Parts: sequence; structure tokens; C-alpha cells
Amino acid sequence: MSLAPLPAIMFEPLVRSALLEDLGRAGDLTTNAIVPVDHLKTMVLVTRQPGVIAGLDLAVLAFRLIDPTIHVKVERADGRAVQAGDVIATVSGSGRGLLTAERTALNFLSHLSGIASATGSVAEAVRGHRAKIVCTRKTTPGLRALEKYAVRAGGGSNHRFGLDDAVLIKDNHIAIAGGIRPAIERVRTGVGHLVKIEVEVDTLDQLEHALDLGIDAVLLDNMSLEQLGKAVAMVGGRAITEASGRITPATAPAIAATGVDLMSIGWLTHSAPILDIGLDYSS
Amino acid sequence: MSLAPLPAIMFEPLVRSALLEDLGRAGDLTTNAIVPVDHLKTMVLVTRQPGVIAGLDLAVLAFRLIDPTIHVKVERADGRAVQAGDVIATVSGSGRGLLTAERTALNFLSHLSGIASATGSVAEAVRGHRAKIVCTRKTTPGLRALEKYAVRAGGGSNHRFGLDDAVLIKDNHIAIAGGIRPAIERVRTGVGHLVKIEVEVDTLDQLEHALDLGIDAVLLDNMSLEQLGKAVAMVGGRAITEASGRITPATAPAIAATGVDLMSIGWLTHSAPILDIGLDYSS
Amino acid sequence: MSLAPLPAIMFEPLVRSALLEDLGRAGDLTTNAIVPVDHLKTMVLVTRQPGVIAGLDLAVLAFRLIDPTIHVKVERADGRAVQAGDVIATVSGSGRGLLTAERTALNFLSHLSGIASATGSVAEAVRGHRAKIVCTRKTTPGLRALEKYAVRAGGGSNHRFGLDDAVLIKDNHIAIAGGIRPAIERVRTGVGHLVKIEVEVDTLDQLEHALDLGIDAVLLDNMSLEQLGKAVAMVGGRAITEASGRITPATAPAIAATGVDLMSIGWLTHSAPILDIGLDYSS
Amino acid sequence: MSLAPLPAIMFEPLVRSALLEDLGRAGDLTTNAIVPVDHLKTMVLVTRQPGVIAGLDLAVLAFRLIDPTIHVKVERADGRAVQAGDVIATVSGSGRGLLTAERTALNFLSHLSGIASATGSVAEAVRGHRAKIVCTRKTTPGLRALEKYAVRAGGGSNHRFGLDDAVLIKDNHIAIAGGIRPAIERVRTGVGHLVKIEVEVDTLDQLEHALDLGIDAVLLDNMSLEQLGKAVAMVGGRAITEASGRITPATAPAIAATGVDLMSIGWLTHSAPILDIGLDYSS
Amino acid sequence: MSLAPLPAIMFEPLVRSALLEDLGRAGDLTTNAIVPVDHLKTMVLVTRQPGVIAGLDLAVLAFRLIDPTIHVKVERADGRAVQAGDVIATVSGSGRGLLTAERTALNFLSHLSGIASATGSVAEAVRGHRAKIVCTRKTTPGLRALEKYAVRAGGGSNHRFGLDDAVLIKDNHIAIAGGIRPAIERVRTGVGHLVKIEVEVDTLDQLEHALDLGIDAVLLDNMSLEQLGKAVAMVGGRAITEASGRITPATAPAIAATGVDLMSIGWLTHSAPILDIGLDYSS
Amino acid sequence: MSLAPLPAIMFEPLVRSALLEDLGRAGDLTTNAIVPVDHLKTMVLVTRQPGVIAGLDLAVLAFRLIDPTIHVKVERADGRAVQAGDVIATVSGSGRGLLTAERTALNFLSHLSGIASATGSVAEAVRGHRAKIVCTRKTTPGLRALEKYAVRAGGGSNHRFGLDDAVLIKDNHIAIAGGIRPAIERVRTGVGHLVKIEVEVDTLDQLEHALDLGIDAVLLDNMSLEQLGKAVAMVGGRAITEASGRITPATAPAIAATGVDLMSIGWLTHSAPILDIGLDYSS
Repeated sequence: MSLAPLPAIMFEPLVRSALLEDLGRAGDLTTNAIVPVDHLKTMVLVTRQPGVIAGLDLAVLAFRLIDPTIHVKVERADGRAVQAGDVIATVSGSGRGLLTAERTALNFLSHLSGIASATGSVAEAVRGHRAKIVCTRKTTPGLRALEKYAVRAGGGSNHRFGLDDAVLIKDNHIAIAGGIRPAIERVRTGVGHLVKIEVEVDTLDQLEHALDLGIDAVLLDNMSLEQLGKAVAMVGGRAITEASGRITPATAPAIAATGVDLMSIGWLTHSAPILDIGLDYSS
Repeated sequence: MSLAPLPAIMFEPLVRSALLEDLGRAGDLTTNAIVPVDHLKTMVLVTRQPGVIAGLDLAVLAFRLIDPTIHVKVERADGRAVQAGDVIATVSGSGRGLLTAERTALNFLSHLSGIASATGSVAEAVRGHRAKIVCTRKTTPGLRALEKYAVRAGGGSNHRFGLDDAVLIKDNHIAIAGGIRPAIERVRTGVGHLVKIEVEVDTLDQLEHALDLGIDAVLLDNMSLEQLGKAVAMVGGRAITEASGRITPATAPAIAATGVDLMSIGWLTHSAPILDIGLDYSS
Repeated sequence: MSLAPLPAIMFEPLVRSALLEDLGRAGDLTTNAIVPVDHLKTMVLVTRQPGVIAGLDLAVLAFRLIDPTIHVKVERADGRAVQAGDVIATVSGSGRGLLTAERTALNFLSHLSGIASATGSVAEAVRGHRAKIVCTRKTTPGLRALEKYAVRAGGGSNHRFGLDDAVLIKDNHIAIAGGIRPAIERVRTGVGHLVKIEVEVDTLDQLEHALDLGIDAVLLDNMSLEQLGKAVAMVGGRAITEASGRITPATAPAIAATGVDLMSIGWLTHSAPILDIGLDYSS
Repeated sequence: MSLAPLPAIMFEPLVRSALLEDLGRAGDLTTNAIVPVDHLKTMVLVTRQPGVIAGLDLAVLAFRLIDPTIHVKVERADGRAVQAGDVIATVSGSGRGLLTAERTALNFLSHLSGIASATGSVAEAVRGHRAKIVCTRKTTPGLRALEKYAVRAGGGSNHRFGLDDAVLIKDNHIAIAGGIRPAIERVRTGVGHLVKIEVEVDTLDQLEHALDLGIDAVLLDNMSLEQLGKAVAMVGGRAITEASGRITPATAPAIAATGVDLMSIGWLTHSAPILDIGLDYSS
Repeated sequence: MSLAPLPAIMFEPLVRSALLEDLGRAGDLTTNAIVPVDHLKTMVLVTRQPGVIAGLDLAVLAFRLIDPTIHVKVERADGRAVQAGDVIATVSGSGRGLLTAERTALNFLSHLSGIASATGSVAEAVRGHRAKIVCTRKTTPGLRALEKYAVRAGGGSNHRFGLDDAVLIKDNHIAIAGGIRPAIERVRTGVGHLVKIEVEVDTLDQLEHALDLGIDAVLLDNMSLEQLGKAVAMVGGRAITEASGRITPATAPAIAATGVDLMSIGWLTHSAPILDIGLDYSS
Repeated sequence: MSLAPLPAIMFEPLVRSALLEDLGRAGDLTTNAIVPVDHLKTMVLVTRQPGVIAGLDLAVLAFRLIDPTIHVKVERADGRAVQAGDVIATVSGSGRGLLTAERTALNFLSHLSGIASATGSVAEAVRGHRAKIVCTRKTTPGLRALEKYAVRAGGGSNHRFGLDDAVLIKDNHIAIAGGIRPAIERVRTGVGHLVKIEVEVDTLDQLEHALDLGIDAVLLDNMSLEQLGKAVAMVGGRAITEASGRITPATAPAIAATGVDLMSIGWLTHSAPILDIGLDYSS
């Protein structure tokens, strides 16, 4: 499956804000004082680590919002695996524009590529298993649509985008409702026909109840491998199974081997380090 | 020195955006269906790891923008070091409001506390040395003012906030200007009297030139400990010395021991993992 | 099921915009010239037609954004059926504030109550049948979340909120994919586990294919009552059935009698007339 | 008189908002999964009912904001009367772009054309009389400038755009002022020289007073045909006469025959049904 | 006539923007470092020149947006004439808040009071004449509604607020139309019944034509006193007469003596110096 | 030094707001009624006074946002000194677009050129002295970045852009801290290494203290020429010296002759009259 790009109107306001936050009230003092207004330059966006690219459209837009005459030639689009030293894109045009937009372009690109790369590393670890890697709502405030996109670029899939596109009944909800059954029943009468219902279960007992009530998916939170295996068997295809808790490239294969459908990972979006990418002179 | 809180008008738009991004077009389907509208609750924000708190005002605002009647009692304010299990604040009021705002509140608080904690860990490692820990412009797009604040909460100090509040002459600028001297001269005539000038130098030769030209600070990028020591000696108090490149809690003490004034660290703001904080039932 | 109110941050920007659009650059010329600044008044929001109320929180906010000291006492909240002459709320305070905010408050309230009332009239017509009334994406630009909410207030349920919270494969998609099977297969590999898939079918043949592929819901567009009955029987509970096309209070009972699960109606949100509501002197 | 188009900066923010409200946080799931990225298409905007077109520029902008390479050929511009089946415009380019923008484009176009068509139907009914059809401030929140424009497209004229561009003294104002005379006198000293003054009168007695005071226009609210005729005679050209209340294409001719200058109609903007327009394959 | 205050929603966004423009990305460095967080203060807004106050509500809002606990006691409201040394308001509360908001509060207050004071000085000069002082559309970008309000505070009246609330036919329009007659005729058929029509005339010949066509007002641009007198006589009450060009407190009385209705002055809003107002310690 | 243009993203939102404030809800009534839609025109922006140009990019953007096909040929760019009658730019294209955008374009251009011209007049008066002319934070709310730019265009330099880019310790701060020494000490520990520190001193005694504490700059407020001379001598190059208070083209040379480094002038941005610029027919 090819990765669908986001329409630019979905991220243009963010790129504008980020540029303005860097330009402040006086613009790029250093570059304006030093670089002649007619100085032209060709530079390259180069990775310094292996990983997966995401966010190149935002980087391109950052350059072009500063100077619409800057030309960009994409070499490795979003979703592409890269090695250290790979050229992602060549940018050419006004030297002032390139240096002024550089940091904003790189901040978007390296942040989103960091998420894509982290996703890619876990996705790679479970290759051959049925499990898909999914992210959570633990995203950086303001960047959720972009970070969810970066997870897709890294080969992952998306869980809920917000509180409104699916039901996820958690322990707090169950406690307030007075049990899994009343929680699910209240939800059934309260949400539309296109909304799926997932329930977080901590024990196999809870799982049994949830399955009896015909929910769409179960979140198996922090279960041992043994419990996960039993849970998958107990579900028997009647619902989507999702494992969560402490999933890393190292622990992922064993978890995937239990046969779960999904493995959800919060740190992909809240704690993945950036992918180191620089803007170098073209050689 | 006490940590000055940011005025709420500086972050209210971000908290609103983050809430709306989570509420989407239909709000919290799960909570609205399950939690009675008059259900009241008292819950606590609890750390699950040691670290330093930052962003509590944003978390409080998230709760109160969803429901202005929610009451918050702060136990450990921004800048406080915490241990796993410490209660940061008690929040009480509408159960719906608490659960609806939970994720947004935690996303701000855990992200900013992650940065404060990372800063704190390096600051702690160099305690006793003159060196201050500073951050860079490698911040998450849209969150720069907040992330810089989190660095201060962690005991660090701030480098430039943008392209416009100080001059930082880097290798690209020097190359375009045709040397350190013309670069500095162009800057001197081009910027105001309240703008400090810093130059990035890679060698002691370059340093010598920069010092001759009377700049305010030198960025000693990726130098060995030996080079750093020589550079500090050569500067002899004529400029602020800043070391950068590969600084971690492990490597920091030796670098600080060279006598540099500042140690700048990009990963504090671009790659620090979150501080794990949860919203629990009050016991 | 009780109707969950929308958090005010979801509609406050719209109420502000609407007030500013009416205030223009000089405010309420007539009221400011005539009504003394200390003139106090008690007035009532009164329906002039039977219907269902929706949007009262927005009307209240309109008054209070103009003058925070205006007091509102709600008599009939959103979701309540009303008769001509019923008092919905009593508003008291500054006469200037009441008259200045009047039109904006009424424009929101009468528009959303119009949608709720239209929904209520069809929902009433199918009472006793399993069919739920749902709306479409044919909403007034900028008001989707509110109009979907008004449908819920009227006793209806919601279909997709946008292009991103469910899949709806329509004739154009099928044509481009080259058939129902490839369309569904492409979707299966391309969307997340919490996204339901609905397919629009025009014939029973197409329906057969769709059911074989295990989709979640079928949209039976513009079918005759006979076809609808056959379709429901053919589905046999394997998917949600949705009828659409020319549904009014008059035609609704017969369509509901075919046993469909859902009846979707575009005109609820794109063409429902307002519910006539006025602001009168309190008697 | 030709219809002046609105500058795009007056509606671009609304079109952006409407697109984002439909795209949500993930974009068009269905289209992205099914339609190949390089699939090109030519489609036509076709009316399914007779009416008058308004809002084509907004529909065009919706397509082009999603994909600037989409080409639009206008066949019937705003203000044109159309028959069922008429092609309004041909749009060609990226299949993804066309399907993603379709609903937003149609929502604007069919809503505004609905208003233009309703206006046109009443304007047609009074053709040959001096009376002009005007709209009110009972508009959809956020869309006033557009809906007023649609009234012009339908052959109508505009009443006040807001509270600030003319004075309209209504019954509440008169009651608070203690009579028509003090109300008008307060207004005369309180507003600028370019502001016209209109007074709502319910009886011929009130009308007499208002005329004595030299106002610019009188609003004859809910008067019988006989009263209207007497009022027009009594005015004798000394002020603009405006009839309002229960005006439809059926009642309009008799009202116009009384000789009033204006007939104002709230339902044109608050309750007109859409004009049914679709996006079809080009044949 | 009392001066109607503007609703706060009309200027709150501007006050927020102005505060953020001053706070930048780090807030008030000086005050935060020096003033203890619990330091309380009472200060006074004091004029240093005679003039007329306008904009106090904006100054108050600036303080309260920084710290909602700051208390303000208004001594001299908008529209009041003041002498040097008069206390306009007393502000008390957080010392940090007061010093942080000071400049923004004063910038609004002194700018708008400058306009009110300039208006007041000319209005005073023509006291006893029928002429009213009016402003133009030559306002500071973004501040038109506020500057027009300041003119009212100074005892002036307002001309057009924008291009859309009245017709003003200028020389360019006449040239393009091919004469005053076709210009006026095109306008008559093109605008609504509540829109007044004014024509700029340079000669008495043009004036004659304009009067024949029944326009509402004439702009007598840059005429000599003699021409003005003749023009007023020629008009004879058939239209509003407006003089413009080089009007100052010194030249105003003679111009007013010609009997014109209005004297419009661009420099009130584009070039009036501020009224000097300071924030002092309360004595 | 050449004047660096501001990137358009820094002022585009302001130009859009200003246009919308003039267009209101109905656009340019006069022009739309009179000027044929296909009428083309070539016009020139002409100065009517000598001065210095600033803001031409904003004027150009105003025209092009109304009609992107308008063509602009710049004759005298920002920073250029002009004489009365000089053509600044030629604009050609749609007559409607030119007349509709005219006032907004001129409002920006004449306001900013007014500031540049005022700055130029003082800068000219001190030519040959070391003193640079700087502006203050007494700017028009919302326009600070632009007005600071205009000062640069006029040959001046910029002081602080906000509360956050430098420390300026004023009398209030000193009073609260209990003296110059504690004020400076608190600041030293509280701000970053790239922030310069300036102290306002009223007496030579205070100056002595400040110099001992090693600050970067001293603000010599309202000192006599004799005091200024003594202060400059006392400083002896140890800090930047800045004079402020009552500086005009007439008083400036004597103040500059005292040897101060900077002369800061509030009225450049808060009270400079506009530079009179008009839009004329091209001859």
C-alpha cells in the first residue's frame, strides 16, 4: 500500500506558526547581515542515521514559505527507508532563504522521521507475524495528525485519532459504570453505528465478559506472554486483540508470537528521539 | 532563583488547540456514554518515575477549560524534583470533565516534565562546576516557548529563542562571508546594540581570530576535551565559552571540568523521553 | 439515553465570530443610541412553533459574551420537545446587552432547533420500528459538529463526521477501483482496525458481493420498498443496513417497516427550516 | 446590473475551515485507499433542479485548495438561472482531489444557490412591480456576507448587514424610549451622517408620527394588504416603504401591488432549502 | 449624548496580540528577575498633558489578561477631558503583573487618547457652529474600529467605516464612469436602500449636477472659503455638505463659519500624536 | 549596509486583516457599481512630501491579495529617500482591484514611511557623530515588528523588540529591588548568557554604581547636556551610553555632540505623522 500524502492545508498553519516562532520580531539577524541578497546556493538534506523519512512535504513548505522561488528536488519521499548519508532532497535558490528556513524545516523533518523510524524498527522486528504496530493518543500537543501520519510512514497503523472516532472503555470507565457489562451497554445505546467499541481488560475473566457482550476489540494491557497467548486463544477471532505495555524492538517478537492482531506503543509518539538530518552543502 | 511562571495568555491558545484536537467533532464518546453527568470524582496526578516537574499550569488549564468548576490543588509546582509515586496535584470535580481532559493534560505535563527531567539530570551531573546547561533551537515546532521554559524548570538556562534575539555565526555563514573577520564585521554594522554576537569555531585558529574581533561568545563545537581546555585557557575570560556536541549525563562532568561557561544540548528539547505521569484515583 | 452537552470550547469561537459579524465595526447603533446604559430588563426566549430545542448553550453564550452579568435561567434544555408558546429560558440583565445579542442568540438557537425538530418529526414517524434516523455530511460549512449535535438532540444518530472516521465506498470509488471487490480489498489494507467500512449498493447483486467480503454496513441507495425488504432479508444480520433517498415523515414508516437498521436523511442538515423562536418581554 | 464577485480573501478562511472540518485528522480514508495517486478525471457540476447559481467561486476554491492543479471551466456563473441537468462547471484533474473536495464544494454551492433560487422565485413573482426583494439579519452564523451575496445573485437586494450600518428602530426600542419621537430623537444625535434611519411601525398612527420626524424608511410589519395600501399612500414618497411578514412567491404579487418599495423576507436566508447540485462523470 | 462603550469581544483579540508581541517567547525578563512574586503595588495612570481620554477599557483589559486579580478603579472614563496630572485610574495588585502589562496598556491608551484629544481640539474650535468633525478611512491598519471610537470619544462623529457601508464617489470613479451623471446612475441601481450616496466635487459646476441627481451628501474637497460659502448656499439644505482638506484647530473656525455640516479630517487618525500618559507610584 | 526585507509571512496576516476591515461584509460598493469588471488601469504611487520610503512590500501585497493579476513595478524601494512628486511604484491591472485596495495599501505605506522619514530626519541631523538613532517599545499595538523595520529603513537602529530580548532595569525595578546593586544581581542570576543588561540612571552617582557592576549599557534619561557629557566621560567606553528624552531634529546635534552611543526616541513610532503618498493616474 502506498502512503497517502496529507493535503497541504492540513499542515500549512503549523508550518507558518513554526517559522514565525523562529523569525520572531526581527527575522534572521545573522543571515541578513552576512549573506548577500542575491547569493544563490544548492544544498542537500542528508540523513546522518539510518531510519525512515516522514515530513518532507513540511520541510519543503517551510523553505517555500520563506522564499517561493526556492526549488526542491525530492530524492527519497516519505515512507522510504534511508541509510546514513543518504540525500533526501536537494534544495536550491536564495542562500538567505535556505539558511533562514533551515532550522524549522529540519525540526519538522527530524521529529516526524524520528517517529517513523521508531515505528519502522518495531514493525521490522515483528515482520512475518500478523501483528500490526499502532500508536496511541499520547502525542505531542498540536501535532497529532502529523505524528499519526508519521506512524503510517513508518509502516504502522493508527489507533483512535481522538476521543470521538471510537470508543475505548478503560478501567476508570468500568469502575464508574460498576462493571464491564453496564459500561458496554451504556455505550451501545449512546454511540453511532459506525463507531467501533474496544474494551481494556486486565484479566481473562474480564475478557470473557467482554466477549460475551460482542465488542469489536479488546485491549490486553500489560499481560504476560502466557496470559496474552491464552487471551488470543479465548478470543478465537471473535474480536480484534491488541497488546499494550512495554513493547520495544527487543520484546516485540515474543509478543507478536502470541498471535495478537495489534501491538500499541505510546513511546512511538511521545518519546521517540529524532532522526538526525542535516542541511549540507551540495558536493 | 525562583522560576517565573509564564502568563497564561502565552499558552492558552495551545491548550485550546490540543483539547480540540482530542475532542474532534463529537467529544468524548466513551465518557459521555458511561459517566453520569453529575458524577463527582477526586483524582491525583502521580509521577511514576523520578524527575522534575514542568507544565503543571497547562495541565490545570486543560482541566478547567473543559470544566471551569474543576478544582485543582497543587502539591509540587514546576521546578520541583519528584520521586516515583509523588502526588503532583489533586484534581476534583466533574468525573466527565476529569476523564475528558485527562489525556491532553498529561500530554503537556509529561512532555514538558520530560524535558525538565532531562535537563535536571545533566545539571545535576555538572553541579559544582561553573558550566550552565543550555538548550538550542532544535525544539518541537509550535512549542518553543514552552520547551525553553521547561529547560529553565529543570535548572538549565536558555540559548537563543529564535533567529532574531542574538547573532550566531555558523560555518555556513563564515563560508559565504569568506572568513570569520568579514562575517563578524558585517554583523557589527547590521545589528542593534542589545544583540550579543556568538561565533561557532571548529579550531583554535578560528578561535584566535574571533577573539581578536571582540565577540561576546564562542561556540566550541565538537571539540575534544583537550581542545576545550586549551580553548578556555586561550579565551581567558574575554568571551563566554560554550561547548556543544554529544553531551550526556555521563560525558558532562569531564566537559564541565574543562572550565567552559556553557554546555548546549540539542537532545533536551528534541529527543528527551516523557516523564511518566498518570491520573489515578485518590486513595 | 441523555444528551451529552458539547464542551463550550467547541463552539465559543463560532459564537464570537457570529457576534462580531453582527457588531461590525461600530456595534449596535440603534440600541446604543436609545437604550440607557443602566436599563435592566427581563425577557424570555419563547417558541412560536412546536418542535425540539437544540443550541441553547450557544444562545446563552452569545448573551454572556456581550455582557457577562446577564443571568440566564434555563426552562427547557436541549433535546426537550416544546409547544408553541413555551418559554425556553428567561434572560435578565442589561437591556443593551439583551438587544445587542438577541439576533445572534436566536440565529444559533432557531437554526439548530430547526434541525432537531426535523429530526424529531421523522424519528417520531418511525417510533416502534428498529430503524434509527441518521444524518449525512451534507451540512452547513463550518457548523458540522453543531448540526450533528442537533440531530442527536432531535433523537437521531450520527453517520460519519468527516472523511476520516469511517470508510464509505460510493459508486465513484467502485468505478475507479474496477468493482466492489477490489475497492473493498484496497480499503482493508489501507485503514486502521477501528475504522468501519460501509459500501453503497444500488442492486441486490452488488449487495451479494459486498456481503461476501464481510463489510460492516451497506448503504441501500434509492431502492424501492420491495428491494429494501429483499435486501434486509438477504443481509440477515450480517451487516448494518442503511436506507437513503427521499425519506420524509410521510414516507418514513413504510421504509422503516422493511426492517432496515438506519435511515439517512440529507435534508435534516441542509434544508430543514428554522424553528421560529423569539425574544419577548417577560409577562 | 452585473453581480460583483466577492474578493477571494473574504471567503478563503471559510473554505479552508470547511475543508478541514471534513478532512478531520486523517483525510479522505476511502479515496486515499482506493483511488491511485495518478488517476485523472474530468467531472461536471450538474444541477438537478431549476434555480439560480451562487457560490461557484467557493466551490472552485475548495477543489483548488485540495489540489492546485485541478482545472475548472465555468459554464454558468453566479447569478445565472439554470434548468435541471445544466452543467455549471467542468472540473478536471486528480481523481483523489476531486473526490476529496467534492462534498465541501457542493455544500457551499448548493446552500448558496438555494438562497439565490429562493430569492429568484420571489423576485420573479413580483416582476413588473417596483418592489425589490430584500433579506434580513436572520442568517446562518458565520455566513452572513456570503448569504447576502447569494440574495444579490438571486436578484434581490440587501437590508442591513449588521447592527452597525443602519439604524432600525423596533418595537422594543420604542417601548424603552417611551415612544417613537424620543426614540428617533435619540438616534439623530447619536449616529453619523451616512447612516440611514428606519422605523418599524405596526399602525398607521405610528406611521404618521414617524413621517413627521423625517426618517428615511419605514418597516410595515405584518400589515394587511389594505393597511399596506393606505400606508403607501400616506407616505407619498417621503420615505422608503418596506413590507415584511409571511411573504412567499404566492403572496408576493398582491403585496407588491400595494406599491411598497421593498419586501423583506427572513426565510430566504434562514430556511431556504438547498439547490440540488451533484458532481457527475463527464459524459 | 453619552459615549457607548465597545463590547470587549470587539477588542480582546487586539489586546491579546499586543501583549504577546511584547512578551515574546520568554516574558518580562527584567521584572521576573527582580520583582518578588508576592510583591503588591498600587499605581496610578496619570496624564502628563491636557486632552481627552479614550481606550481605558483596553488598558484595563491588558492588566487583567496578565493577571486577573489586578483591581482597577476608574477615575476618568473615556470621553472625559483631562488636565496634566489628572489620575485616570488606580490599578492595584501584583507588582509583576502591573509592570509586565504597563507598556501595552499605555500604548493603547495613549494612542487612542491622542486621537480623542486631537478630535477634541478641533471640535472645541468649532463649538457654536453647526459643523461636526468627522474622520476618514485613513486609519492605522487593524485599528479602524478603535480609532473611529476614539474620534467619537473626542466629540467627533464617524464617516464611512469601510468600503461597504456607504457610497463615496471620487474623482477616479467619475473619470472611469465618464461623468458624474453616469457614475451616480450606476450606483443607484447597484446598492441597497439603506446605503447613502456621497459625491466628491471639486467645482460648483460639478456640484450643480450632483444636486440635480438627488444625492445624499457632497464632499467639497479643498475648496476656498469663498467657494465653500457659495457651495453651501447652492445646496440649500438639499444634501449634507462636507468640507475636507487642510483642516486644523487654527483653520477650522473660518471653515465652519461657511455653514458646512461636516468637516472631515484625515490626520485625526493617521497623524495625531499620542497623549502622554504614564504609570506612576500612587502617592 | 543594505536593508533586509521582512519575509512576507511576517506581515501577510496583517495585510489580510486590514483589507477585510475595509471590505467589511459587502466589499467596495462604489467601485463595484461604477467600474466595469474588465476596466484596466495603470496608476502610480507618488509621494507628496520628501521623506524615506518603508512598507512598499505591504502595499504591493495589498493590491495582489485583492487581485493576483495586478502587476507592480517598484521604482523606489524601502530605505530610499524621496522628494515630493517621486514615483515609488507603478501598478497596473484591474481598475476595480486598484481602487479597492488603494486605501489599505496607502495606509500601510504612508504610516511606515512616516516613521522612516521621521527617523531619517533625526539621523540626518546627527550625521558625522557616533550616535545611532534607536526607537523604543512605544509602538502601535500589533505593528511592532513593522514599525521597528521602518526605523531601520529610515537609517535608525532598534532597541529591545519586547520584554524578553534584553534586560532594561528602570526606576520602578530599582525601587522594588531596594537599589541598583540588588537589582543587577538578581538579573545576573536570572537571565541567559545572550541577554544584554541595560540600566536606567538618573544621576551620576547611580551611574557609578552601575558601572562598577559591569552592565552592558546605561540609559541616561532626561539628563542635561552637561550631565550627558560627564556621564560619557565617566563611562569611558566601559558600557554603551544611551541618551533619551526630548530628542528632536533640532536638539539632536547638541546631544550627539556629548559623545553618546545611542539616542532613543519614543515619538518616532508613537507620534510620527504619516508621509503623504497618493495613488494617481499615470501620466
